[in-house]
Amino acid sequence: MTRILGIDPGSQRTGVGVIEVDGAGRLTHHFHAALMVAGEADFPARLKRIFDDLNAIIADYRPTECAVERVFMARNADSALKLGQARGAAICAAVSRGMAVHEYAATEVKQAVVGSGRGDKTQVQHMVGVLLGLKGPLQADAADALAIAVAHAHTRSSLERVGVARSAWRRR
Amino acid sequence: MTRILGIDPGSQRTGVGVIEVDGAGRLTHHFHAALMVAGEADFPARLKRIFDDLNAIIADYRPTECAVERVFMARNADSALKLGQARGAAICAAVSRGMAVHEYAATEVKQAVVGSGRGDKTQVQHMVGVLLGLKGPLQADAADALAIAVAHAHTRSSLERVGVARSAWRRR
Repeated sequence: MTRILGIDPGSQRTGVGVIEVDGAGRLTHHFHAALMVAGEADFPARLKRIFDDLNAIIADYRPTECAVERVFMARNADSALKLGQARGAAICAAVSRGMAVHEYAATEVKQAVVGSGRGDKTQVQHMVGVLLGLKGPLQADAADALAIAVAHAHTRSSLERVGVARSAWRRR
Repeated sequence: MTRILGIDPGSQRTGVGVIEVDGAGRLTHHFHAALMVAGEADFPARLKRIFDDLNAIIADYRPTECAVERVFMARNADSALKLGQARGAAICAAVSRGMAVHEYAATEVKQAVVGSGRGDKTQVQHMVGVLLGLKGPLQADAADALAIAVAHAHTRSSLERVGVARSAWRRR
């Protein structure tokens, strides 16, 4: 049994999801939320909210591994700077609690969840609900966070099956 | 007496400085360093280094206010994302210890240190050394961090002199 924290960081909304994967690759949903941080007084206060809320979620659900989406290209320098700060706060919350952080490209996440690197957002949201047995529509950022956690669960299960040493893939 | 932490965040090197300002605006140097984080195994490990090292410095020197440079325009989206993450980690270290974080534009920092918004880097480094009574050349990022702390010291002294309520400028 491994608990995985998936994070989809953003300076307006940060998606969070916690799932569990057993030795056979079976998934269980534990938690999801979208942290709405746009209403905070200033940008440092937003970062504090992301950091504090993630810390509280980690303390409550005790995940041991963390997965975030790898960002290849942001729209422009200004949005990249904002996204980077939110991402820095989120990753800090995980690493300051001793968790390993794994990064996955958007195509890897789609591949794991919808079986193709070219699935669209709605398809990903729908399939995350199906895979985790959730009823009703999921908030978009929370769904993305769960999808990233699912991608990590699949990757670690496959690697364990082909006998890659734990220490090796923790370094990837 | 107020202790100020100045930070010049960067994903390769993060400059840090701690100074003290008294009621008359007199400055005392306490600490400066450049955290060299480029050698870490991966990017999350760099963010952890920035976060952990700043936490240790804050625990040792107990500054109560923090100042960072405001970033207007990064060179490109990729460097903005890296800078943003380093900045997010640095700001998190300060806000997670309850410090208020103040942002200053590069021109405000230059104005405070060399008396003109158009001073060049070498001039800023030289004047920081003079203002704080330091001997010998300063590492560039550490000098920038001290300069940002000096800018905050000057701003808060001027505001206190003109009688702006503490609560008002803490919100700026």
